[in-house]
Amino acid sequence: MSLLWSTETTATDERIMKFLAGEDVILDRELLRYDIRATIAHVEGLARIGVLDNDECGALVTELQSIDQRFAAGELQLDERFEDGHSAIESWLTDKLGETGARVHTGRSRNDQVLVATRLFLRDALAALGQHCRDAADACLLQANDHADWPMPGYTHLQRAVVSTVGTWFAGFAEAFIDNAALAAATADWIDANPLGTAAGYGVNLPLDREYTSAALNFGRTQINPVYTQNSRGKFELQALAALGQALQDVRRYAWDLSLFTSAEFGFVHLPDIYTTGSSIMPNKRNPDLVELLRAAHATVAGAKAEIESVLSLPSGYHRDLQATKAPVLRGFGRGLAAMECLPGLVRDTGFDRERLEAAIEPGLYATDRAIQLARDGVPFREAYRQTKSAANPDSGMTPAASIEARVSPGAAGNLQLDRLRERLDALPG
Amino acid sequence: MSLLWSTETTATDERIMKFLAGEDVILDRELLRYDIRATIAHVEGLARIGVLDNDECGALVTELQSIDQRFAAGELQLDERFEDGHSAIESWLTDKLGETGARVHTGRSRNDQVLVATRLFLRDALAALGQHCRDAADACLLQANDHADWPMPGYTHLQRAVVSTVGTWFAGFAEAFIDNAALAAATADWIDANPLGTAAGYGVNLPLDREYTSAALNFGRTQINPVYTQNSRGKFELQALAALGQALQDVRRYAWDLSLFTSAEFGFVHLPDIYTTGSSIMPNKRNPDLVELLRAAHATVAGAKAEIESVLSLPSGYHRDLQATKAPVLRGFGRGLAAMECLPGLVRDTGFDRERLEAAIEPGLYATDRAIQLARDGVPFREAYRQTKSAANPDSGMTPAASIEARVSPGAAGNLQLDRLRERLDALPG
Amino acid sequence: MSLLWSTETTATDERIMKFLAGEDVILDRELLRYDIRATIAHVEGLARIGVLDNDECGALVTELQSIDQRFAAGELQLDERFEDGHSAIESWLTDKLGETGARVHTGRSRNDQVLVATRLFLRDALAALGQHCRDAADACLLQANDHADWPMPGYTHLQRAVVSTVGTWFAGFAEAFIDNAALAAATADWIDANPLGTAAGYGVNLPLDREYTSAALNFGRTQINPVYTQNSRGKFELQALAALGQALQDVRRYAWDLSLFTSAEFGFVHLPDIYTTGSSIMPNKRNPDLVELLRAAHATVAGAKAEIESVLSLPSGYHRDLQATKAPVLRGFGRGLAAMECLPGLVRDTGFDRERLEAAIEPGLYATDRAIQLARDGVPFREAYRQTKSAANPDSGMTPAASIEARVSPGAAGNLQLDRLRERLDALPG
Amino acid sequence: MSLLWSTETTATDERIMKFLAGEDVILDRELLRYDIRATIAHVEGLARIGVLDNDECGALVTELQSIDQRFAAGELQLDERFEDGHSAIESWLTDKLGETGARVHTGRSRNDQVLVATRLFLRDALAALGQHCRDAADACLLQANDHADWPMPGYTHLQRAVVSTVGTWFAGFAEAFIDNAALAAATADWIDANPLGTAAGYGVNLPLDREYTSAALNFGRTQINPVYTQNSRGKFELQALAALGQALQDVRRYAWDLSLFTSAEFGFVHLPDIYTTGSSIMPNKRNPDLVELLRAAHATVAGAKAEIESVLSLPSGYHRDLQATKAPVLRGFGRGLAAMECLPGLVRDTGFDRERLEAAIEPGLYATDRAIQLARDGVPFREAYRQTKSAANPDSGMTPAASIEARVSPGAAGNLQLDRLRERLDALPG
Repeated sequence: MSLLWSTETTATDERIMKFLAGEDVILDRELLRYDIRATIAHVEGLARIGVLDNDECGALVTELQSIDQRFAAGELQLDERFEDGHSAIESWLTDKLGETGARVHTGRSRNDQVLVATRLFLRDALAALGQHCRDAADACLLQANDHADWPMPGYTHLQRAVVSTVGTWFAGFAEAFIDNAALAAATADWIDANPLGTAAGYGVNLPLDREYTSAALNFGRTQINPVYTQNSRGKFELQALAALGQALQDVRRYAWDLSLFTSAEFGFVHLPDIYTTGSSIMPNKRNPDLVELLRAAHATVAGAKAEIESVLSLPSGYHRDLQATKAPVLRGFGRGLAAMECLPGLVRDTGFDRERLEAAIEPGLYATDRAIQLARDGVPFREAYRQTKSAANPDSGMTPAASIEARVSPGAAGNLQLDRLRERLDALPG
Repeated sequence: MSLLWSTETTATDERIMKFLAGEDVILDRELLRYDIRATIAHVEGLARIGVLDNDECGALVTELQSIDQRFAAGELQLDERFEDGHSAIESWLTDKLGETGARVHTGRSRNDQVLVATRLFLRDALAALGQHCRDAADACLLQANDHADWPMPGYTHLQRAVVSTVGTWFAGFAEAFIDNAALAAATADWIDANPLGTAAGYGVNLPLDREYTSAALNFGRTQINPVYTQNSRGKFELQALAALGQALQDVRRYAWDLSLFTSAEFGFVHLPDIYTTGSSIMPNKRNPDLVELLRAAHATVAGAKAEIESVLSLPSGYHRDLQATKAPVLRGFGRGLAAMECLPGLVRDTGFDRERLEAAIEPGLYATDRAIQLARDGVPFREAYRQTKSAANPDSGMTPAASIEARVSPGAAGNLQLDRLRERLDALPG
Repeated sequence: MSLLWSTETTATDERIMKFLAGEDVILDRELLRYDIRATIAHVEGLARIGVLDNDECGALVTELQSIDQRFAAGELQLDERFEDGHSAIESWLTDKLGETGARVHTGRSRNDQVLVATRLFLRDALAALGQHCRDAADACLLQANDHADWPMPGYTHLQRAVVSTVGTWFAGFAEAFIDNAALAAATADWIDANPLGTAAGYGVNLPLDREYTSAALNFGRTQINPVYTQNSRGKFELQALAALGQALQDVRRYAWDLSLFTSAEFGFVHLPDIYTTGSSIMPNKRNPDLVELLRAAHATVAGAKAEIESVLSLPSGYHRDLQATKAPVLRGFGRGLAAMECLPGLVRDTGFDRERLEAAIEPGLYATDRAIQLARDGVPFREAYRQTKSAANPDSGMTPAASIEARVSPGAAGNLQLDRLRERLDALPG
Repeated sequence: MSLLWSTETTATDERIMKFLAGEDVILDRELLRYDIRATIAHVEGLARIGVLDNDECGALVTELQSIDQRFAAGELQLDERFEDGHSAIESWLTDKLGETGARVHTGRSRNDQVLVATRLFLRDALAALGQHCRDAADACLLQANDHADWPMPGYTHLQRAVVSTVGTWFAGFAEAFIDNAALAAATADWIDANPLGTAAGYGVNLPLDREYTSAALNFGRTQINPVYTQNSRGKFELQALAALGQALQDVRRYAWDLSLFTSAEFGFVHLPDIYTTGSSIMPNKRNPDLVELLRAAHATVAGAKAEIESVLSLPSGYHRDLQATKAPVLRGFGRGLAAMECLPGLVRDTGFDRERLEAAIEPGLYATDRAIQLARDGVPFREAYRQTKSAANPDSGMTPAASIEARVSPGAAGNLQLDRLRERLDALPG
């Protein structure tokens, strides 16, 4: 391992070194290309203020681009030979460019270097989150439209309550993922601030062109105060994970519903084999493993949030503790986005069984409709409620279709307002 | 207790009833006025579709306004005689208006009733959060301006690192609370959707005028799908608490800094007596209790978030579990906003001791400046780093003022850009 | 409010005072009688070392006992007139005994006073937890015995997998609550250490007879080091909540099962009306509210744990932050024990429907039995698995009874080993 | 990848397969040797009931031992070619032994297989935790003894309060880690139950000799009920992590103290270079990175606990969600034990600076001693408190040594009772 601060007299102890290193360099594989991109902007910025001349700048940018490509192609490996990704980049640069390579570090600290790389990572991650949410919402809207009049019990307390529809159920998830996409976008906007150029948290005695790097890296704004850039480490990560967690909570609910709906008892939904696995001991089974792992995916994000929150009880300024925010954010988005990616296809492949649904529409489900009708006709609700409750045949003459049709309050089964949802979906950024 | 669904044969058991009731009716004291407000809108909406005639509507609205005033004045008490706030309102109405009072429940369920009341509560709570953040940011900017050239060690790893300023420190918190205010506003916007009119989660067979109630309650949009309104219970609360938690994390950091700065060892800050308390056993002490309780306030919100997240692993539709989201959201905002409210004054009263600060500026703090200067002059950074490290007098001739002045990278001590921060603060909504 | 440390010049500000006070005095209602009990021991201890004479000691003990009785009888109120319970006790004492009353504070700090009161509270709370767990286990064993041969599908992935029994299901919860009772006992033992006599965290210059107070308060050991007594604040609370949380996780699982089993789709279980409530809008419904609130009860404890953990990131010694551990521990045990108390009755009243259970035993459930039989007969398992899977009639001639009888691996349906579980239950302390 | 349940018609989709697989096989590297060990016991158990003959058993055991050694030596790799560790073992066995290899799966499911492997892992992990805690306590006791009379301010609210000693501070951590070792042992005992032989959660139609495998694997008891074995997945992991978390909370506090004590402002402690690192930009710095990463280590465990708790809201029986408990438990113990391992050495190397400590003993620190002395002499405490507070020279004639000597309440600086702590340490199991 190459340590910038090593001196001959630095004592080391393998166990402690291993604990200090953790899995940092492995984690940096996810961040390296963002780090390179930001390093290019930094180098160009240094050239703009005359700290590097044009030749140096050109050589560095060319070499950084080459490193980026070779890393992407697997020709360069980021592994335990390096302390972290930052050291690796500098090492590869100096291998080729000698002293010029080392100058990339001028006016910069690992503190702002990791901040900007993480910020770029989060921006991409939130964009992907938004895309998956929009795709899921789109799939839900199509399914809602296709099953607008498929009857389905509406449950409260897991008890059959009133007649509802498959369309209503799908439209509910459509609106959920529209909201989640909107949240991803709002969160991306909130964290869209460039921390590069603030060094170790107190700026430097160079007239860094921070506006240039903000523009070059396509940031919406410059994060101005250097103490704040350090103090926002973990803060922005946490909010990004909160947005991810919201989406995964709705995934979890979708999975919960499917877990019930695919049981023998409900029997409402059939999933293609691609989403199920067999049992190692029970030949008769097809298990909805994907659904269950989607349900569990939120837990990874909940754990990541708790981990980061737990780290952040600190005074101002950089502390090595903050490094411990890196693993959870990468883990949370790694698993979380992998789950999100499976969702749109699953929605499209969620196949309902109309016969089983219709068989589940029992007479009692019309009681509320009838009570409300009585109330509308002037019978006091409490009285209507009692009449209906004691009625021998609360549903005389009712059909699912009639019940659905009468459910006209905006958003309800008879008035789904899919067009309005589609409109909101189409208006989302991204 | 008056239970709508009671029949003569309903068996009860005191212990179970008590567990079921929990502290719900006490909690509803915080929500009652929002519930009344939404009930008025609902009543007017029922009149618009002819379910109530104008006389009924007028009587109900007048009486609801009277209840609101009498409750605010302490003439009506919400206590264990009632199952919850919803029951209390209906009971007070029927006391005065008989059957007409009961008609307020037409086309509505407690499920959407509690949703809309909570939504209105959250909207106000986030507005208050935004206001406190803006006030804190304003106070920080004024302090930053007043102490722009007060030297102060910049710490990393709690080790003195470089020369910084009190102004830089304050400006960092200013930017933090500007961000927090922006987050409060974005979150308020995200949840600004009217759930009223979706009944128990499946709409009703009435043409409720949901656009009217959305407008009357000043919502930014109508939350369309009734399954989603139920599924968003807890979801929106959680995001509101996330915004609150972000602000309180920065409060925690401010408190951490003050906790250190007011110690005998640092001695940088003096707090007015109003913020400290004496010791019950140690006559010589003044303890920064307020600072410590501000530091702890985030924990209440972290607990509330964990509590809600833990509840939300559920299939679609209303479950009584969701009632358990009410206590944490009220507790979190109750304690959290009380903490936020103390912050702006504390910022204004944070008094630094210039002598102690200056005494803390030791020679080593100039080493980085010098290394960067060497690097700028063309010495390779690694070489500059080594030269500086081994220099006998790294700070020959340096002064705090000179170091600050040279720290010109945007945002740093010599270039705080308070105007840009002020501009962002002034541009915030609210 | 009476503040020990008040001087004429203490500036106050109502808002800040309110934030500082929080709900502390209200919370102390739960701790007051423990505080009194420990105060009596402290007073007796002071007499033993001659700091109080026998008359003073006698007068104080008599008056403390009187305060205890009057508080229990509702004649003395702990409310906002007092800063906290400690101040109230001293105030009531001095009202009666003048200066002698104030001497109760000698050699003690509120820091060790709140520690010992909380420790005594936790000890009782864990004893109650153990009792509820043992009662629940007992009820489960009786039910298991009564339903040992009632067939029931065994589910994995919520898919019907093999034949199992109601007895197996109940016996599983019996073993769970036996473990939970054992954990409550082990945890009570772990925290059974007397912190009284360590003052503010550094002991005092008096030869306090700590062994006496340990014995008088029936502690298993003396917590020796005063720095550690302060540092264990929250630590012991957290572990007590962990034990409670384990029990509530099993309650949650029991509730999850009942929530499914009482649905129309499963229809396995009928609950007496006492456990269900009606719907405010749907006359046809009986909702298992108790079951749902039991499922949600763990969330309160999860939140309380998160809250305490969040507070505890602190250096050594008392900090006012630690006061913020009081509310969550009281809230967690308040709600958690109320839930636990409902459990044994619910277990006894869980009524299974044998017909519905038998109807759920479908042919495929015998496939695993058959595969294992083939394997036992020497057919390679993989081959047996394939044969069984493709068999037209995997269950030819199988009955639930035969399948149960053959399930002889220890613990399984045909060999429940209820006696061994009963033996472990009987051997538990408490 | 080799899937037991694959058929020709199983459709697959790479993305979904990847999400399903997660990092499971990589995680199983930590569990494989435990899995092998339990598999040997299972095989021997099958031989005891005649399902395997002695030759088969002998061949399997020999081959399993060989696999174990080759895996330990790095000759066999567990990687993405396998679905998980269980599949790998079976695959390696069948490669060598053909059909006999496959018979290892008879009467067993991956469900109980992973349970028993995890249980064995936890047992070792808790033993290691106990050992590290005992080593840390031992080191603390030695340091306490060596520094019994080194004065040090005792802090409350981070304010200097009274005279204390370095010995008192070390002894506090000694008692903390004795408690933590006791908790590790109690927790190990609580989970020391053999789940092997319960198959997929409902036992099997074979007379498995579970007592044999319990004895062979050295379990304290057999976990009887098969439904409970599944339902305890995550439950036991969570409790083990709770024990680990308790130790790491005290590590965090130790690290917090060192973080302050090594600051320039406190200056109480010097750490050998081995525990510190240099700065990449600031040549003048030595940063206590190890201390900071030790402080952060608890966060990994807090996150792991939150992750598992979040998964566990499920009905009875195995669900694939439960697989998501594996990563956090391995991650929590991986990082947590690595931190614990660094602690004893750090304690031994914590070097205090007596001069700095003595300089921090200011006159006010004697005020409490004096107030208590006055109180002891019969002056009412409140009056004594006031006298002392207004005294011009509260410490006339006081010295640190005199103050320490007088601090005789058991456990305090003048009466540390290190022997009693040593006795408790020596009495711990393990």
